[in-house]
Amino acid sequence: MWTGLFRLNGLDVVCVPMRVASSGLGAFLEGAKALRNFLGLIVTIPHKAASLEHVTTLTERAGRVGAVNVIRLTEGDEWSGDTVDGVGFVAGLRRRGHDPAGRRSLVVGVGGAGTAIAFALAEAGVAEVAVFDVDEGRAAGVAAHVAATGVPSWVATADAAGFDLVVNATPLGMASDDPLPITLDGVDPGCIVGDVVVHPEMTKLLTDAHERGCITQPGVHMMDGQITPMAAFLGLGEGQWDADAVAKVVSAL
Amino acid sequence: MWTGLFRLNGLDVVCVPMRVASSGLGAFLEGAKALRNFLGLIVTIPHKAASLEHVTTLTERAGRVGAVNVIRLTEGDEWSGDTVDGVGFVAGLRRRGHDPAGRRSLVVGVGGAGTAIAFALAEAGVAEVAVFDVDEGRAAGVAAHVAATGVPSWVATADAAGFDLVVNATPLGMASDDPLPITLDGVDPGCIVGDVVVHPEMTKLLTDAHERGCITQPGVHMMDGQITPMAAFLGLGEGQWDADAVAKVVSAL
Repeated sequence: MWTGLFRLNGLDVVCVPMRVASSGLGAFLEGAKALRNFLGLIVTIPHKAASLEHVTTLTERAGRVGAVNVIRLTEGDEWSGDTVDGVGFVAGLRRRGHDPAGRRSLVVGVGGAGTAIAFALAEAGVAEVAVFDVDEGRAAGVAAHVAATGVPSWVATADAAGFDLVVNATPLGMASDDPLPITLDGVDPGCIVGDVVVHPEMTKLLTDAHERGCITQPGVHMMDGQITPMAAFLGLGEGQWDADAVAKVVSAL
Repeated sequence: MWTGLFRLNGLDVVCVPMRVASSGLGAFLEGAKALRNFLGLIVTIPHKAASLEHVTTLTERAGRVGAVNVIRLTEGDEWSGDTVDGVGFVAGLRRRGHDPAGRRSLVVGVGGAGTAIAFALAEAGVAEVAVFDVDEGRAAGVAAHVAATGVPSWVATADAAGFDLVVNATPLGMASDDPLPITLDGVDPGCIVGDVVVHPEMTKLLTDAHERGCITQPGVHMMDGQITPMAAFLGLGEGQWDADAVAKVVSAL
């Protein structure tokens, strides 16, 4: 996808997947500092949190989340990092006409992606951000930090009843025999049910939500919503990067 | 070219140019050991000799030349290296129907490429390998080592008279105002005049040789001749790599 977007924008750039052994992550990031013809690295599982100790400068949101999913070199050859999972999720919602502002929201699973989404929803003006995680302490920590930004936040159960925006930010749904991550029994038909899982596009949670009349938001839109902020972080701003072209390609994918 | 060849052979592999700062070469090679989805690195200027200290295992020819132009990881994540400049030059000659066997040959310039070519010509059965270099000591060293393989070798001047295979292995000819690296005044019209310079394809030396009725061998054929041995070193042997398809693509380039 990225290589196609680069080509479409007339940029002589490719995106190449590099599978990096966890034991060699530090050496890999140190060695990559010698590269003189690259934009940066998109970081994914299992390196999003582990990369943090090799990154010198963090955006505020990456610092809050405690993870990066895109890094680039500064002029002094130090790593600078950002995480755009959360803004990507919100951008994906907005692109499909769903403004999260004012919604009572529930985020289930507050690992890297879920934490980023919780903060991004708060910033996007939701009425409240309830969070759930199997690690209660982690959930409480995220709720406290989100609440500190001025948006009500607390630890809830994984039950959609009473919310009008619920998000699965756990990996549950990737395997066909996974249990549902969120109870939908009392869900309001007007509720938006979102997922971070990309494959399958329609998880069991989303299929179930769709049958109950809810609005569904598959994980692919969160991924698409990250393109523009990632590109911007990598230095591809306006003039170098045609956001309309991006949107056109993405919608055709 | 490599990416096209990979695609043609049904391999999900790309070749990506990486510009590496000399000061970071060691760290880069150390970091690349963490990669789990790559075949290896094609090494070029200015890293061919400098990489040597990071390479644990060398082929005999790479050891002789004191440089590598292709490296891969062993199972123990150490670098193993080869240099195929010389065999590439000989393969390029043969592909165009010019067998070097029995020819009195002169190699001008015995840096990495020239030294590799001198050894490869000796192995290909030339009658003799005269060498010239502006660094006389280096020329004498290469001549002594080639002679030790059983093929007559000595230090000569850069004069084609009396030879029937002469090779420019200096960078002279890349710039339009470079002097001719080899004197052609007394050259035999049956002589093969080869060049390692790739751009321009027809150097002044080759144009001059062509006008004198000599057979010319542009540098591009040496590069093409390296494809199959490089692929083999990277583990793409028969069954995985269609040598005929390679030759077809190369001839169409």
